[in-house]
Amino acid sequence: MQVDLIIEARWIIPVEPESVIHENHSLIVNDGKIIDLLPQHTARHQYQAHTLRELHNHALIPGLINCHTHASMTLLRGIADDLPLMEWLQKHIWPLEQKWVGEAFVRDGTDLAIAEMIRGGTTCFNDMYFFPEITAHQAIKHGIRAGIGLIAIDFPSAWAEDSDAYLEKGLALHERLRHEPLITTPFAPHAPYTISDEPLSKIRMLADELDLPVHMHVHETRHEVDEQRQKTGQTPLQRLDELGLLSPAFIAVHMTQLSDAEIDDYARTGGHIVHCPESNLKLASGFCPVAQCLNAGINVALGTDGAASNNDLDMLAEMRSAALLGKGVSGDASAVPAMTALQMATLNGAKALGIDQQTGSLTIGKAADVVAIEFSEVETQPLYHPLSQIVYSASRNQVTDVWVGGRQLLKQRQLTTINLSDLHERIGIWRERLYADDNK
Amino acid sequence: MQVDLIIEARWIIPVEPESVIHENHSLIVNDGKIIDLLPQHTARHQYQAHTLRELHNHALIPGLINCHTHASMTLLRGIADDLPLMEWLQKHIWPLEQKWVGEAFVRDGTDLAIAEMIRGGTTCFNDMYFFPEITAHQAIKHGIRAGIGLIAIDFPSAWAEDSDAYLEKGLALHERLRHEPLITTPFAPHAPYTISDEPLSKIRMLADELDLPVHMHVHETRHEVDEQRQKTGQTPLQRLDELGLLSPAFIAVHMTQLSDAEIDDYARTGGHIVHCPESNLKLASGFCPVAQCLNAGINVALGTDGAASNNDLDMLAEMRSAALLGKGVSGDASAVPAMTALQMATLNGAKALGIDQQTGSLTIGKAADVVAIEFSEVETQPLYHPLSQIVYSASRNQVTDVWVGGRQLLKQRQLTTINLSDLHERIGIWRERLYADDNK
Repeated sequence: MQVDLIIEARWIIPVEPESVIHENHSLIVNDGKIIDLLPQHTARHQYQAHTLRELHNHALIPGLINCHTHASMTLLRGIADDLPLMEWLQKHIWPLEQKWVGEAFVRDGTDLAIAEMIRGGTTCFNDMYFFPEITAHQAIKHGIRAGIGLIAIDFPSAWAEDSDAYLEKGLALHERLRHEPLITTPFAPHAPYTISDEPLSKIRMLADELDLPVHMHVHETRHEVDEQRQKTGQTPLQRLDELGLLSPAFIAVHMTQLSDAEIDDYARTGGHIVHCPESNLKLASGFCPVAQCLNAGINVALGTDGAASNNDLDMLAEMRSAALLGKGVSGDASAVPAMTALQMATLNGAKALGIDQQTGSLTIGKAADVVAIEFSEVETQPLYHPLSQIVYSASRNQVTDVWVGGRQLLKQRQLTTINLSDLHERIGIWRERLYADDNK
Repeated sequence: MQVDLIIEARWIIPVEPESVIHENHSLIVNDGKIIDLLPQHTARHQYQAHTLRELHNHALIPGLINCHTHASMTLLRGIADDLPLMEWLQKHIWPLEQKWVGEAFVRDGTDLAIAEMIRGGTTCFNDMYFFPEITAHQAIKHGIRAGIGLIAIDFPSAWAEDSDAYLEKGLALHERLRHEPLITTPFAPHAPYTISDEPLSKIRMLADELDLPVHMHVHETRHEVDEQRQKTGQTPLQRLDELGLLSPAFIAVHMTQLSDAEIDDYARTGGHIVHCPESNLKLASGFCPVAQCLNAGINVALGTDGAASNNDLDMLAEMRSAALLGKGVSGDASAVPAMTALQMATLNGAKALGIDQQTGSLTIGKAADVVAIEFSEVETQPLYHPLSQIVYSASRNQVTDVWVGGRQLLKQRQLTTINLSDLHERIGIWRERLYADDNK
């Protein structure tokens, strides 16, 4: 049979079924989908490929899913670090955003983020930011999968003046994007402390009606929880529950403040958690009890958060941080093992976004969202277990090839859909503008 | 004036004086030492160089000092992960060590570690392992600086049969190495729970006499502290204090179990701490209260620990982990800022090893232990503050050039003193042996 692409790899880690590692197998791709996964010698008899990629020192894994980011904030990477949270926001991030965020900022920042993400093996990102139509446009243009958050917040921005306007623009965008194969459009109400009951109730109703997930920062800091409790006697989670938002379509980001009872209650709602270990550490937000949440049966995915609070969009490193921190926080060296970390960064992300029928594992019938990682350098030698090397030793520069829906976006370390010299020129201009402004 | 080497760099971060960043300066190197640091245009008038290296997109930092490792254990990288500590040690690491550790194991493992360390910007490592004479020989051969621990432990090994034999062999090795410019020889009693009072008292006496530091695992886990307290009523730190070991020549590794009073007491002794954040997380040992220790005036350095419990020897990543975890553990987003993390990974390490007169900062009169880091890829753009990019965004593959004592060990990513294909061949043989043995 004639097919588009055969990828032969030394190891293939499909994630589904769990804990399986195929050796010397081939992944067969046609019309953007995985149509077979079988031993190399059999594959060569059964299939003739338009393109054959031989990766004899590599492992294939499902494309990484960055389940929480603010892509265009990559323009603010490292502009102000090591500051208390409120000083960082009020004196640096917010004034810069207020002055500069617009279509051009979001276009150029998103392009930089997408370039970095593809080079690091990320094939899907779940975004929350202003001008989501621009983010969607750039994602489609560059061929990467994305959850484009229909942002809602009580405060005016350059994009919309009030919560009604956010919802209206969001719904119109959802309409325009609903047939885009790479794009989903979760609602993205910013956080419990920035959005009031009325728009939240509308979002719950609309999300049910349109069958869309709801993506929100929740219980990020103790301050957030304490303040809400003092004002209303309720925790943010209790309020969201009362408003009917907690459900298998709810994606709660951060969740660093959780009692045992809250973990059990949240597990019963079927809601998802996006863990952002590096952002939580950098902003000293607290520790998400990941091992406990997983044990309670909660689907926990992984995100980098924006590059302004990380300061990268490196999902390999984030997996490693999640695996290490999960052990440290639970006091159990066997917690969050490598396979669990990889699941969090792939299949669990797809489940959270409601796209696990299309992506999240190297399974026949799913889209060919595939990442190849190379092991021959000293940093990942000797190689006993490829999964261990991926999670605990490999760096993102060992990602050699990336496909999304069968389209190759990274080819032997070269981006195929982004012009780097043009991008560097645009980033250089933003650097001058923003630096001058932040140092006034 | 004619000199050996001029390195022109876009940024130079000397670490001493603190918080200074020079732009468009040159580092002048002659006879292995830094003899000047001045603006590029002036330098070109004043000096003629045998070699000129122009690094116009790079920052120079002092060579990184990995203050705690077991270099040859790199051969065991990833052989067994995600296990409870005792199962990991008793069923995997110790049986493999018992069977295989010898001169060849230490030679090949050390070579692999040195290759990885140089490629990642490490110019000095402080080691603790059996057959230290082999480790020293390989370090000298490849041109890297090293603290070669004179290991002592109550248990027999392939290297020595009892604590007297360890000390005797250690002293002989110290004698042989005392005039090697790259080598120092700290005493390295393994840990409070593996060495008895008598050899420890001898070590204290000998260390005083020979003016050598003492490098030891201390308060690594709660189990260690609880067990000692139950047996003797004393904590390990109290016992070491009573034996007279705690002093400005004492290097305590890990220190995850520390009360406020213990921090203050330890600070008064003038002893050093080596923080190993990734190993502490991976083995779920506990959290070293780094910010508190720094505030108490303790000199805190940084180490990767062995690659078997990390699983790499990546000091850039370790700096980042230390900066992030230091904020998370203290609950203060301004704790362990980037400059502090860089100090911990350079000057503080030199201080702990007692070699800060020779290395640890880019200071006139010190050895030219220099690392160049390149910033032009998207992952470290836009670039507002080079120090922030080094600590929070850069990966070790951005290290382009490394010098130790003016000798170039890494040249545009190529190792100059290690034959990689020969090394890969030797590692391949060990991989087969150890894998077969661990999977019997």
